[in-house]
Amino acid sequence: MNIIEPRVLKGFRDFPPSAEIERRGLIENIEASFRSFGFAPIDTPALEYAEILLGKGGGETEKQVYRFTDNGGRDVALRFDLTVPFARFIAARRSEITLPFKRYHIAKVWRGENTQRGRYREFTQCDVDIVGSNSPASDFEILLVMRDTLKAIGAGDVTIHINHRGLFNRFLATLGLLDKSVDILRLVDKSAKIGRDAVVERLAGIAGGKAEKILQFIEAKGDFEEVLARLTGLSGGPSPESGRLAALRAYMLQHAAASGAAGGADAFTLDPSITRGLDYYTGIVYETFLNDMPEIGSICSGGRYDNLASLYSKENISGVGTSIGLDRLIAALEALGRLEQRVSYARIAVACLKEADAGAYQAIAGRFRDAGLACEVFFAEEKLAKQYMTAEKKGVQWLIIPPLDNPLRGNLTLRNLAARENSEPLSIEEAAARLKAVLEA
Amino acid sequence: MNIIEPRVLKGFRDFPPSAEIERRGLIENIEASFRSFGFAPIDTPALEYAEILLGKGGGETEKQVYRFTDNGGRDVALRFDLTVPFARFIAARRSEITLPFKRYHIAKVWRGENTQRGRYREFTQCDVDIVGSNSPASDFEILLVMRDTLKAIGAGDVTIHINHRGLFNRFLATLGLLDKSVDILRLVDKSAKIGRDAVVERLAGIAGGKAEKILQFIEAKGDFEEVLARLTGLSGGPSPESGRLAALRAYMLQHAAASGAAGGADAFTLDPSITRGLDYYTGIVYETFLNDMPEIGSICSGGRYDNLASLYSKENISGVGTSIGLDRLIAALEALGRLEQRVSYARIAVACLKEADAGAYQAIAGRFRDAGLACEVFFAEEKLAKQYMTAEKKGVQWLIIPPLDNPLRGNLTLRNLAARENSEPLSIEEAAARLKAVLEA
Repeated sequence: MNIIEPRVLKGFRDFPPSAEIERRGLIENIEASFRSFGFAPIDTPALEYAEILLGKGGGETEKQVYRFTDNGGRDVALRFDLTVPFARFIAARRSEITLPFKRYHIAKVWRGENTQRGRYREFTQCDVDIVGSNSPASDFEILLVMRDTLKAIGAGDVTIHINHRGLFNRFLATLGLLDKSVDILRLVDKSAKIGRDAVVERLAGIAGGKAEKILQFIEAKGDFEEVLARLTGLSGGPSPESGRLAALRAYMLQHAAASGAAGGADAFTLDPSITRGLDYYTGIVYETFLNDMPEIGSICSGGRYDNLASLYSKENISGVGTSIGLDRLIAALEALGRLEQRVSYARIAVACLKEADAGAYQAIAGRFRDAGLACEVFFAEEKLAKQYMTAEKKGVQWLIIPPLDNPLRGNLTLRNLAARENSEPLSIEEAAARLKAVLEA
Repeated sequence: MNIIEPRVLKGFRDFPPSAEIERRGLIENIEASFRSFGFAPIDTPALEYAEILLGKGGGETEKQVYRFTDNGGRDVALRFDLTVPFARFIAARRSEITLPFKRYHIAKVWRGENTQRGRYREFTQCDVDIVGSNSPASDFEILLVMRDTLKAIGAGDVTIHINHRGLFNRFLATLGLLDKSVDILRLVDKSAKIGRDAVVERLAGIAGGKAEKILQFIEAKGDFEEVLARLTGLSGGPSPESGRLAALRAYMLQHAAASGAAGGADAFTLDPSITRGLDYYTGIVYETFLNDMPEIGSICSGGRYDNLASLYSKENISGVGTSIGLDRLIAALEALGRLEQRVSYARIAVACLKEADAGAYQAIAGRFRDAGLACEVFFAEEKLAKQYMTAEKKGVQWLIIPPLDNPLRGNLTLRNLAARENSEPLSIEEAAARLKAVLEA
């Protein structure tokens, strides 16, 4: 018979135990943080009507989406983000939902992107959103969730760069350039990629003599208060948008003082160069950088939007949210050496001296499992030296060697594989207590 | 603008918080049990080359699979189970894997099945397999994982019905009917659905006068030892297959005696009517029924297979595994009232007395979160009576009412929403201690 090559599609990945244990651990910690703020999980189908997912018919997106006709003749597509399905979910379930509604959704999405840029065609997003509140207090909570979650998973301190889309538009209006907003946003968003000179040149093409003024706006630097004063001035004086940023700043200072966290408010910076390009945001927008590895780029970004579900509902539902890019986060944490590498959750195993005693060995292992220790049982009656080698390959640190005869009656021996040392004879209780003390230290 | 109806594809489902919290809790408990036995997680792509997934070209399966041509012209399909991708995974990574390899995989799969039978087109499988060991000790471990996992998640005691495919084939060989094995298996598998009489009639069509003898085999009843003796006799006397079942039985008795679990071996019964139809099993097969709700059908089934990866590799890799059907399990646990219903993880929330104090309220909530209590913060400065109602709708049991002025200086009040009672004034530490005591009791 011909052998089929066991290949995986380009841009798709297997996660063997070492990678999957790492990912699962990280996701579990992210979830714990989201839950602690009162966000509840939802899930939605991987496959939806194409009409639902592509309603707005975004050009870029449409080319990337996995779309096909199913066996029932339906025009369907794999979800390419978690926001569009969330909008559909909200519209469909509006009557049963209590607003403000706080949900998280951690799941895979699919985009047939060019993989040359180190991007994947199947990847995981971790989204958290609050819909149905227009309060700046909900904006602040999202900022705090990002900061605290990244801290909780060991990513360290972050700097969250914040801007307000509406304030930038107000500024453009004072220049008579509001109708060029999309082109200008697109250009500003590229500045890190194409460089300041190219931006200046292209801006001149769009905005003529006002290019320099636009650059003054987006390049405003200093502490939060200084930048806010400057942007407020450039955009024609105090406005609801500058007021919202001021309210957020007051929350930051109040929270930092109340938490006793020295410099807690330093995590937030007002950065008018952050625009989130062509996204659907209408209020504040933000990108989050790790202080220990800013060069890897934004780990977590989002903003406030009006009219989330406008395609599917006549009701206006606004919200604010953020999305953690799990792959980039993992790349950063791996580079920083902050992810534990292991191939199994079991650090202990019961050796096999007689295959006929496998029932008793499982009973011994059961006692360790009951004590909260994941425990393997070896199946093959092999020389102990060989079992030591197998154990080490599997990430097992201690081998439990039962008595040869009557495995449950006599005392057992613990083999410390790294130290190549055997313990004195121990009862199961003594052995479990010792292993718990060592492994949970 | 036209509104798009926010509908979901037939056979697909949204999981709102109440359902998703239930599912996630269950999956987390299943995972904890799998991990305690030393099984490690893997993940594989949702989308694979159709050639990989449909290699054997199974007729039924091929009709149900979501298959299409991607934008790069590749013939691709959504996975319809977790076993085929696992076989491909093993073949591709054979050199980096230490055998025996124990993996679990909990993920969604897709089949365009007829949904009238209460089946879904997107559903979750929980698979656990041991590959690279032919020892009966590995068969026994899988039986134990099923029993202990279902116990650990609150499904109660189970009865695992075990049979051996090879023993049945050996029996058919003594009748000269081995070449009719597939047809007979298919028929036996249908007996619960079409009834004994129909089976007798159709069996006569295949096996002539030997139909009655076949029924004697598959209807053998009694305790494990009695049935084993009968099947051994009917299949021509002791064989490797009957020996394997005897070894398994010895493990069961040894384990029950050693665990001090009275009647622990009663969880296992030898049932020659279990055949697992047309599956690829070659050794033992099993189905698992809840003692408290056997009528819902098998919750967890599987068996031993040879040559898992034969489509993709010349190496023979045998294994044994099982799969929990999450949807049926949830249906059973819901009917038994063993799943907690909640819409949020947060049972406490900080009320909003002044929107301008949202920074301080988050700092207060942060103290409760640090104490391990998930805590919401309300954003809207509304009358307390209204906040009580919102809290109850969100599943919040206690509302934390901060002091109106200087929210972090004075004492706060706890509102017990069900009892409609306020506490005396408490410090944050006192309040956290009290809530922990009540909520973690």
